[in-house]
Amino acid sequence: MQIALFVFDRMTALDAVGPLEIIARLPGAEVKIVGIEAGLVRADKGSGELGVMADHAIADVPAPDILMIPGGKDVSHIMADDRVLDWIRAAHETSTWTTSICTGGLILAAAGVLDCVRATTHWSALHRLADFGAIAASERVVIDGKIATGAGVSAGIDLALTLMAVIAGEEQAQFTQLMTEYDPRPPFDGGSPAKAPPAVLARAKSLLGL
Amino acid sequence: MQIALFVFDRMTALDAVGPLEIIARLPGAEVKIVGIEAGLVRADKGSGELGVMADHAIADVPAPDILMIPGGKDVSHIMADDRVLDWIRAAHETSTWTTSICTGGLILAAAGVLDCVRATTHWSALHRLADFGAIAASERVVIDGKIATGAGVSAGIDLALTLMAVIAGEEQAQFTQLMTEYDPRPPFDGGSPAKAPPAVLARAKSLLGL
Repeated sequence: MQIALFVFDRMTALDAVGPLEIIARLPGAEVKIVGIEAGLVRADKGSGELGVMADHAIADVPAPDILMIPGGKDVSHIMADDRVLDWIRAAHETSTWTTSICTGGLILAAAGVLDCVRATTHWSALHRLADFGAIAASERVVIDGKIATGAGVSAGIDLALTLMAVIAGEEQAQFTQLMTEYDPRPPFDGGSPAKAPPAVLARAKSLLGL
Repeated sequence: MQIALFVFDRMTALDAVGPLEIIARLPGAEVKIVGIEAGLVRADKGSGELGVMADHAIADVPAPDILMIPGGKDVSHIMADDRVLDWIRAAHETSTWTTSICTGGLILAAAGVLDCVRATTHWSALHRLADFGAIAASERVVIDGKIATGAGVSAGIDLALTLMAVIAGEEQAQFTQLMTEYDPRPPFDGGSPAKAPPAVLARAKSLLGL
Protein backbone atom coordinates (compact mmCIF):
# COMPACT_ATOMS: atom_id res chain seq x y z
CA MET A 1 0.00 0.00 0.00
CA GLN A 2 1.97 2.97 -1.27
CA ILE A 3 0.95 6.31 0.25
CA ALA A 4 2.12 9.58 -1.33
CA LEU A 5 1.91 12.60 0.97
CA PHE A 6 2.48 15.80 -0.95
CA VAL A 7 4.39 18.55 0.88
CA PHE A 8 5.02 22.06 -0.38
CA ASP A 9 6.20 25.52 0.61
CA ARG A 10 3.72 27.46 2.79
CA MET A 11 1.65 24.37 3.55
CA THR A 12 0.03 23.99 6.97
CA ALA A 13 2.22 21.40 8.65
CA LEU A 14 -0.52 19.82 10.76
CA ASP A 15 -2.63 19.24 7.63
CA ALA A 16 0.11 16.85 6.54
CA VAL A 17 1.42 15.40 9.79
CA GLY A 18 -1.94 14.71 11.47
CA PRO A 19 -3.07 12.16 8.89
CA LEU A 20 0.50 10.96 8.30
CA GLU A 21 0.79 9.92 11.94
CA ILE A 22 -2.29 7.73 11.46
CA ILE A 23 -1.97 6.39 7.94
CA ALA A 24 1.71 5.41 8.30
CA ARG A 25 0.45 2.85 10.84
CA LEU A 26 -1.67 1.08 8.24
CA PRO A 27 -0.36 -2.49 7.98
CA GLY A 28 1.89 -2.67 4.93
CA ALA A 29 2.10 1.09 4.51
CA GLU A 30 4.96 2.35 2.36
CA VAL A 31 5.02 6.12 2.86
CA LYS A 32 6.53 8.43 0.25
CA ILE A 33 6.88 12.09 1.18
CA VAL A 34 6.80 13.89 -2.16
CA GLY A 35 7.34 17.45 -3.34
CA ILE A 36 7.30 19.27 -6.65
CA GLU A 37 10.99 18.42 -6.59
CA ALA A 38 12.83 16.39 -3.98
CA GLY A 39 14.26 18.62 -1.26
CA LEU A 40 13.33 20.71 1.75
CA VAL A 41 10.08 22.66 1.84
CA ARG A 42 9.08 25.26 4.42
CA ALA A 43 5.66 25.23 6.03
CA ASP A 44 3.70 28.43 6.66
CA LYS A 45 4.47 30.93 9.41
CA GLY A 46 1.49 29.55 11.37
CA SER A 47 3.36 26.24 11.40
CA GLY A 48 6.56 27.86 12.64
CA GLU A 49 8.03 27.66 9.12
CA LEU A 50 8.88 24.05 9.85
CA GLY A 51 11.30 22.54 7.36
CA VAL A 52 10.05 19.22 6.00
CA MET A 53 11.92 16.99 3.58
CA ALA A 54 10.30 15.90 0.35
CA ASP A 55 12.21 12.66 -0.15
CA HIS A 56 10.97 12.21 -3.70
CA ALA A 57 9.79 14.31 -6.58
CA ILE A 58 6.15 13.80 -7.52
CA ALA A 59 7.32 12.67 -10.96
CA ASP A 60 9.04 9.70 -9.30
CA VAL A 61 5.88 8.55 -7.49
CA PRO A 62 3.31 8.48 -10.29
CA ALA A 63 0.89 5.82 -9.10
CA PRO A 64 0.39 5.73 -5.31
CA ASP A 65 -2.44 3.70 -3.84
CA ILE A 66 -3.33 6.57 -1.54
CA LEU A 67 -2.80 10.18 -2.54
CA MET A 68 -2.85 12.76 0.29
CA ILE A 69 -2.97 16.49 -0.42
CA PRO A 70 -2.70 18.87 2.54
CA GLY A 71 -3.54 22.56 2.33
CA GLY A 72 -2.39 25.91 3.56
CA LYS A 73 -3.61 29.42 4.23
CA ASP A 74 -2.85 30.29 0.60
CA VAL A 75 -2.51 27.47 -1.91
CA SER A 76 -2.90 29.58 -5.05
CA HIS A 77 0.70 28.86 -6.07
CA ILE A 78 -0.06 25.14 -6.05
CA MET A 79 -3.46 25.51 -7.71
CA ALA A 80 -1.67 27.26 -10.59
CA ASP A 81 1.14 24.72 -10.94
CA ASP A 82 0.50 22.36 -13.83
CA ARG A 83 3.20 19.97 -12.64
CA VAL A 84 1.14 19.32 -9.51
CA LEU A 85 -2.26 19.33 -11.19
CA ASP A 86 -1.12 16.97 -13.94
CA TRP A 87 0.40 14.65 -11.34
CA ILE A 88 -2.81 14.62 -9.30
CA ARG A 89 -4.96 13.94 -12.35
CA ALA A 90 -2.76 11.06 -13.47
CA ALA A 91 -2.34 9.58 -9.99
CA HIS A 92 -6.08 9.82 -9.38
CA GLU A 93 -6.72 7.59 -12.39
CA THR A 94 -5.08 4.62 -10.68
CA SER A 95 -5.36 5.49 -6.98
CA THR A 96 -7.41 3.46 -4.56
CA TRP A 97 -8.01 6.58 -2.49
CA THR A 98 -7.56 10.23 -3.39
CA THR A 99 -7.65 12.42 -0.29
CA SER A 100 -7.23 15.99 0.84
CA ILE A 101 -7.12 17.88 4.09
CA CYS A 102 -8.17 21.49 4.58
CA THR A 103 -7.58 23.65 1.49
CA GLY A 104 -5.88 20.67 -0.11
CA GLY A 105 -9.48 20.22 -1.28
CA LEU A 106 -9.08 23.34 -3.42
CA ILE A 107 -5.99 21.78 -4.98
CA LEU A 108 -7.91 18.61 -5.83
CA ALA A 109 -10.69 20.81 -7.18
CA ALA A 110 -8.27 22.80 -9.33
CA ALA A 111 -6.98 19.51 -10.73
CA GLY A 112 -10.54 18.78 -11.80
CA VAL A 113 -11.06 15.62 -9.81
CA LEU A 114 -13.88 16.99 -7.63
CA ASP A 115 -16.31 17.64 -10.45
CA CYS A 116 -19.78 16.65 -9.16
CA VAL A 117 -18.12 15.10 -6.10
CA ARG A 118 -19.30 15.77 -2.53
CA ALA A 119 -16.31 17.21 -0.70
CA THR A 120 -15.23 19.42 2.16
CA THR A 121 -12.38 21.78 2.99
CA HIS A 122 -11.50 24.41 5.61
CA TRP A 123 -14.76 26.17 6.64
CA SER A 124 -13.50 29.45 5.19
CA ALA A 125 -12.99 27.93 1.72
CA LEU A 126 -16.18 25.87 1.35
CA HIS A 127 -17.78 28.43 -0.97
CA ARG A 128 -14.84 28.12 -3.34
CA LEU A 129 -15.31 24.37 -3.89
CA ALA A 130 -18.53 25.03 -5.76
CA ASP A 131 -16.65 27.29 -8.22
CA PHE A 132 -14.89 24.13 -9.41
CA GLY A 133 -18.06 22.08 -9.74
CA ALA A 134 -17.74 20.21 -6.46
CA ILE A 135 -20.67 19.72 -4.10
CA ALA A 136 -19.49 21.46 -0.93
CA ALA A 137 -20.45 19.68 2.29
CA SER A 138 -19.93 21.27 5.68
CA GLU A 139 -18.87 18.06 7.38
CA ARG A 140 -15.76 16.90 9.23
CA VAL A 141 -14.95 14.07 6.82
CA VAL A 142 -16.65 13.39 3.50
CA ILE A 143 -16.24 10.17 1.52
CA ASP A 144 -17.66 10.09 -2.00
CA GLY A 145 -16.59 7.05 -3.96
CA LYS A 146 -12.82 6.85 -3.67
CA ILE A 147 -12.40 10.51 -2.78
CA ALA A 148 -12.07 11.34 0.91
CA THR A 149 -11.80 14.97 2.00
CA GLY A 150 -11.36 16.47 5.44
CA ALA A 151 -12.26 19.86 6.89
CA GLY A 152 -9.66 22.30 8.24
CA VAL A 153 -6.19 21.43 9.58
CA SER A 154 -6.88 19.16 12.57
CA ALA A 155 -9.58 17.25 10.64
CA GLY A 156 -6.87 15.24 8.92
CA ILE A 157 -6.63 13.02 11.99
CA ASP A 158 -10.35 12.18 11.81
CA LEU A 159 -10.07 11.69 8.06
CA ALA A 160 -7.20 9.24 8.33
CA LEU A 161 -8.78 7.22 11.14
CA THR A 162 -12.03 7.02 9.20
CA LEU A 163 -10.14 5.85 6.14
CA MET A 164 -8.14 3.34 8.14
CA ALA A 165 -11.35 1.80 9.50
CA VAL A 166 -12.63 1.37 5.95
CA ILE A 167 -9.35 -0.02 4.60
CA ALA A 168 -8.12 -2.17 7.48
CA GLY A 169 -11.13 -2.60 9.74
CA GLU A 170 -12.41 -0.90 12.84
CA GLU A 171 -10.09 -2.72 15.21
CA GLN A 172 -6.98 -1.42 13.43
CA ALA A 173 -8.35 2.12 13.56
CA GLN A 174 -9.24 1.76 17.23
CA PHE A 175 -5.77 0.41 17.93
CA THR A 176 -4.18 3.39 16.19
CA GLN A 177 -6.49 5.79 18.00
CA LEU A 178 -5.40 4.29 21.32
CA MET A 179 -1.70 4.33 20.42
CA THR A 180 -1.92 8.01 19.46
CA GLU A 181 -4.11 8.59 22.55
CA TYR A 182 -6.63 10.39 20.40
CA ASP A 183 -9.10 11.21 23.10
CA PRO A 184 -9.35 14.93 22.37
CA ARG A 185 -10.30 17.48 25.00
CA PRO A 186 -10.43 20.83 23.24
CA PRO A 187 -10.32 23.56 25.88
CA PHE A 188 -13.19 25.37 24.14
CA ASP A 189 -16.23 24.13 22.24
CA GLY A 190 -15.66 26.60 19.43
CA GLY A 191 -13.60 24.94 16.72
CA SER A 192 -16.17 25.49 13.99
CA PRO A 193 -17.87 28.67 12.77
CA ALA A 194 -21.24 27.45 14.03
CA LYS A 195 -19.89 27.22 17.57
CA ALA A 196 -17.22 29.94 17.83
CA PRO A 197 -18.07 33.08 19.81
CA PRO A 198 -19.28 35.82 17.40
CA ALA A 199 -16.31 38.13 18.10
CA VAL A 200 -13.86 35.30 17.40
CA LEU A 201 -15.60 34.37 14.17
CA ALA A 202 -15.67 38.01 13.07
CA ARG A 203 -11.92 38.31 13.69
CA ALA A 204 -11.22 35.15 11.71
CA LYS A 205 -13.41 36.28 8.79
CA SER A 206 -11.77 39.69 8.77
CA LEU A 207 -8.29 38.14 8.68
CA LEU A 208 -9.35 35.83 5.86
CA GLY A 209 -10.97 38.63 3.88
CA LEU A 210 -14.44 37.06 4.05
CA MET B 1 8.43 35.08 23.06
CA GLN B 2 11.06 32.59 21.90
CA ILE B 3 9.81 29.01 21.57
CA ALA B 4 12.26 26.13 21.23
CA LEU B 5 10.77 22.93 19.84
CA PHE B 6 13.18 20.04 20.16
CA VAL B 7 13.19 17.49 17.33
CA PHE B 8 15.14 14.26 17.21
CA ASP B 9 15.57 10.97 15.40
CA ARG B 10 12.73 8.48 16.02
CA MET B 11 10.44 11.10 17.55
CA THR B 12 6.71 10.91 16.98
CA ALA B 13 6.10 13.68 14.44
CA LEU B 14 2.62 14.59 15.63
CA ASP B 15 3.92 15.08 19.19
CA ALA B 16 5.92 17.97 17.78
CA VAL B 17 3.75 19.33 14.98
CA GLY B 18 0.41 19.31 16.84
CA PRO B 19 1.48 21.85 19.45
CA LEU B 20 3.73 23.67 16.98
CA GLU B 21 0.74 24.44 14.75
CA ILE B 22 -0.92 26.13 17.74
CA ILE B 23 1.92 27.79 19.60
CA ALA B 24 3.48 29.33 16.48
CA ARG B 25 0.29 31.40 16.27
CA LEU B 26 0.95 33.02 19.64
CA PRO B 27 1.31 36.77 19.04
CA GLY B 28 5.02 37.60 18.94
CA ALA B 29 6.08 33.96 18.67
CA GLU B 30 9.62 33.38 17.45
CA VAL B 31 9.87 29.64 16.78
CA LYS B 32 13.21 27.84 16.82
CA ILE B 33 13.25 24.23 15.69
CA VAL B 34 16.24 22.74 17.50
CA GLY B 35 18.09 19.44 17.41
CA ILE B 36 21.08 17.94 19.17
CA GLU B 37 22.92 19.38 16.19
CA ALA B 38 21.45 21.43 13.36
CA GLY B 39 20.38 19.24 10.46
CA LEU B 40 17.76 16.78 9.34
CA VAL B 41 16.20 14.32 11.78
CA ARG B 42 13.97 11.37 10.91
CA ALA B 43 10.77 10.70 12.79
CA ASP B 44 9.71 7.18 13.76
CA LYS B 45 8.30 4.61 11.37
CA GLY B 46 4.84 5.30 12.81
CA SER B 47 5.28 8.85 11.55
CA GLY B 48 6.30 7.68 8.08
CA GLU B 49 9.96 8.44 8.88
CA LEU B 50 9.22 12.06 8.08
CA GLY B 51 12.35 14.16 7.65
CA VAL B 52 12.24 17.33 9.74
CA MET B 53 14.87 20.04 9.76
CA ALA B 54 16.45 21.13 13.02
CA ASP B 55 17.37 24.67 12.02
CA HIS B 56 19.51 25.21 15.10
CA ALA B 57 21.58 23.20 17.53
CA ILE B 58 20.24 23.19 21.07
CA ALA B 59 23.52 24.79 22.18
CA ASP B 60 22.63 27.85 20.10
CA VAL B 61 19.22 28.31 21.75
CA PRO B 62 20.09 28.19 25.44
CA ALA B 63 17.32 30.30 26.97
CA PRO B 64 13.94 29.98 25.24
CA ASP B 65 10.84 31.37 26.91
CA ILE B 66 8.95 28.20 26.07
CA LEU B 67 10.66 24.83 25.90
CA MET B 68 8.74 22.05 24.11
CA ILE B 69 9.86 18.43 24.28
CA PRO B 70 7.99 15.87 22.18
CA GLY B 71 8.30 12.13 22.65
CA GLY B 72 8.48 8.92 20.71
CA LYS B 73 7.85 5.21 21.04
CA ASP B 74 11.37 4.78 22.40
CA VAL B 75 13.15 7.84 23.79
CA SER B 76 15.85 5.97 25.70
CA HIS B 77 18.56 7.37 23.40
CA ILE B 78 17.50 10.90 24.33
CA MET B 79 17.05 10.12 28.02
CA ALA B 80 20.67 8.94 28.03
CA ASP B 81 22.10 11.92 26.16
CA ASP B 82 23.72 14.40 28.54
CA ARG B 83 23.83 17.10 25.86
CA VAL B 84 20.03 17.11 25.82
CA LEU B 85 19.53 16.68 29.56
CA ASP B 86 22.03 19.44 30.41
CA TRP B 87 20.36 21.74 27.88
CA ILE B 88 16.92 21.07 29.35
CA ARG B 89 18.11 21.63 32.90
CA ALA B 90 19.77 24.93 32.00
CA ALA B 91 16.90 26.15 29.81
CA HIS B 92 14.38 25.25 32.50
CA GLU B 93 16.12 27.59 34.93
CA THR B 94 15.14 30.63 32.88
CA SER B 95 12.11 29.41 30.91
CA THR B 96 8.66 30.86 31.40
CA TRP B 97 7.14 27.50 30.44
CA THR B 98 8.73 24.08 30.27
CA THR B 99 6.52 21.65 28.40
CA SER B 100 6.41 18.11 27.10
CA ILE B 101 4.12 15.98 24.97
CA CYS B 102 3.74 12.22 25.26
CA THR B 103 6.95 10.48 26.35
CA GLY B 104 8.69 13.82 26.13
CA GLY B 105 7.60 13.76 29.77
CA LEU B 106 10.09 10.95 30.38
CA ILE B 107 12.82 13.12 28.88
CA LEU B 108 11.92 15.99 31.21
CA ALA B 109 11.86 13.49 34.05
CA ALA B 110 15.28 12.12 33.12
CA ALA B 111 16.59 15.68 33.16
CA GLY B 112 15.40 15.89 36.73
CA VAL B 113 12.96 18.74 36.30
CA LEU B 114 9.85 16.76 37.26
CA ASP B 115 10.92 15.97 40.80
CA CYS B 116 7.79 16.25 42.98
CA VAL B 117 5.94 17.78 40.03
CA ARG B 118 2.47 16.62 38.90
CA ALA B 119 2.87 15.53 35.30
CA THR B 120 1.50 13.31 32.59
CA THR B 121 2.77 11.37 29.57
CA HIS B 122 1.53 8.71 27.14
CA TRP B 123 -0.80 6.37 29.06
CA SER B 124 1.61 3.48 28.59
CA ALA B 125 4.47 5.35 30.27
CA LEU B 126 2.69 6.88 33.27
CA HIS B 127 4.13 4.31 35.66
CA ARG B 128 7.65 5.29 34.62
CA LEU B 129 7.22 8.94 35.65
CA ALA B 130 7.08 7.92 39.28
CA ASP B 131 10.48 6.24 38.94
CA PHE B 132 11.92 9.72 38.47
CA GLY B 133 10.12 11.25 41.44
CA ALA B 134 7.29 12.85 39.48
CA ILE B 135 3.67 12.65 40.56
CA ALA B 136 2.00 10.86 37.67
CA ALA B 137 -1.46 12.18 36.77
CA SER B 138 -3.67 10.39 34.29
CA GLU B 139 -5.01 13.60 32.73
CA ARG B 140 -5.01 15.07 29.24
CA VAL B 141 -3.05 18.20 30.19
CA VAL B 142 -1.37 18.89 33.51
CA ILE B 143 -0.05 22.29 34.58
CA ASP B 144 2.01 22.43 37.75
CA GLY B 145 3.72 25.76 38.25
CA LYS B 146 5.51 26.55 35.03
CA ILE B 147 5.61 22.95 33.86
CA ALA B 148 2.92 21.86 31.42
CA THR B 149 2.77 18.25 30.26
CA GLY B 150 0.45 16.55 27.81
CA ALA B 151 -0.68 12.96 27.44
CA GLY B 152 0.06 10.86 24.33
CA VAL B 153 0.72 12.18 20.81
CA SER B 154 -2.49 14.04 19.87
CA ALA B 155 -2.70 15.63 23.35
CA GLY B 156 -0.13 18.21 22.27
CA ILE B 157 -2.88 20.16 20.54
CA ASP B 158 -4.91 20.37 23.74
CA LEU B 159 -1.77 21.23 25.70
CA ALA B 160 -0.81 24.10 23.40
CA LEU B 161 -4.32 25.58 23.27
CA THR B 162 -4.56 25.41 27.06
CA LEU B 163 -1.20 27.13 27.37
CA MET B 164 -2.15 29.76 24.79
CA ALA B 165 -5.28 30.62 26.78
CA VAL B 166 -3.15 31.13 29.90
CA ILE B 167 -0.48 33.16 28.10
CA ALA B 168 -2.51 35.22 25.65
CA GLY B 169 -6.09 34.96 26.85
CA GLU B 170 -9.05 32.80 25.99
CA GLU B 171 -10.01 34.76 22.89
CA GLN B 172 -6.62 34.16 21.26
CA ALA B 173 -6.90 30.45 22.00
CA GLN B 174 -10.46 30.33 20.67
CA PHE B 175 -9.35 32.17 17.55
CA THR B 176 -6.56 29.65 16.98
CA GLN B 177 -8.92 26.76 17.62
CA LEU B 178 -11.29 28.13 14.98
CA MET B 179 -8.49 28.77 12.47
CA THR B 180 -7.23 25.21 12.89
CA GLU B 181 -10.86 24.00 12.84
CA TYR B 182 -10.19 22.02 15.98
CA ASP B 183 -13.64 20.56 16.40
CA PRO B 184 -12.56 16.94 16.70
CA ARG B 185 -14.81 14.05 15.75
CA PRO B 186 -12.90 10.87 16.57
CA PRO B 187 -14.55 7.99 14.75
CA PHE B 188 -14.39 5.89 17.93
CA ASP B 189 -14.73 6.78 21.60
CA GLY B 190 -11.71 4.70 22.51
CA GLY B 191 -8.62 6.90 22.51
CA SER B 192 -7.72 6.17 26.12
CA PRO B 193 -7.12 2.87 27.92
CA ALA B 194 -10.23 3.41 30.06
CA LYS B 195 -12.42 3.54 26.98
CA ALA B 196 -10.70 1.29 24.41
CA PRO B 197 -12.27 -2.10 23.71
CA PRO B 198 -10.52 -4.77 25.83
CA ALA B 199 -9.09 -6.62 22.81
CA VAL B 200 -7.63 -3.39 21.43
CA LEU B 201 -6.09 -2.47 24.79
CA ALA B 202 -4.63 -5.96 25.14
CA ARG B 203 -3.03 -5.73 21.70
CA ALA B 204 -1.54 -2.31 22.53
CA LYS B 205 -0.18 -3.53 25.86
CA SER B 206 1.30 -6.59 24.24
CA LEU B 207 3.06 -4.49 21.59
CA LEU B 208 4.39 -2.15 24.25
CA GLY B 209 5.58 -5.02 26.48
CA LEU B 210 3.27 -4.05 29.35
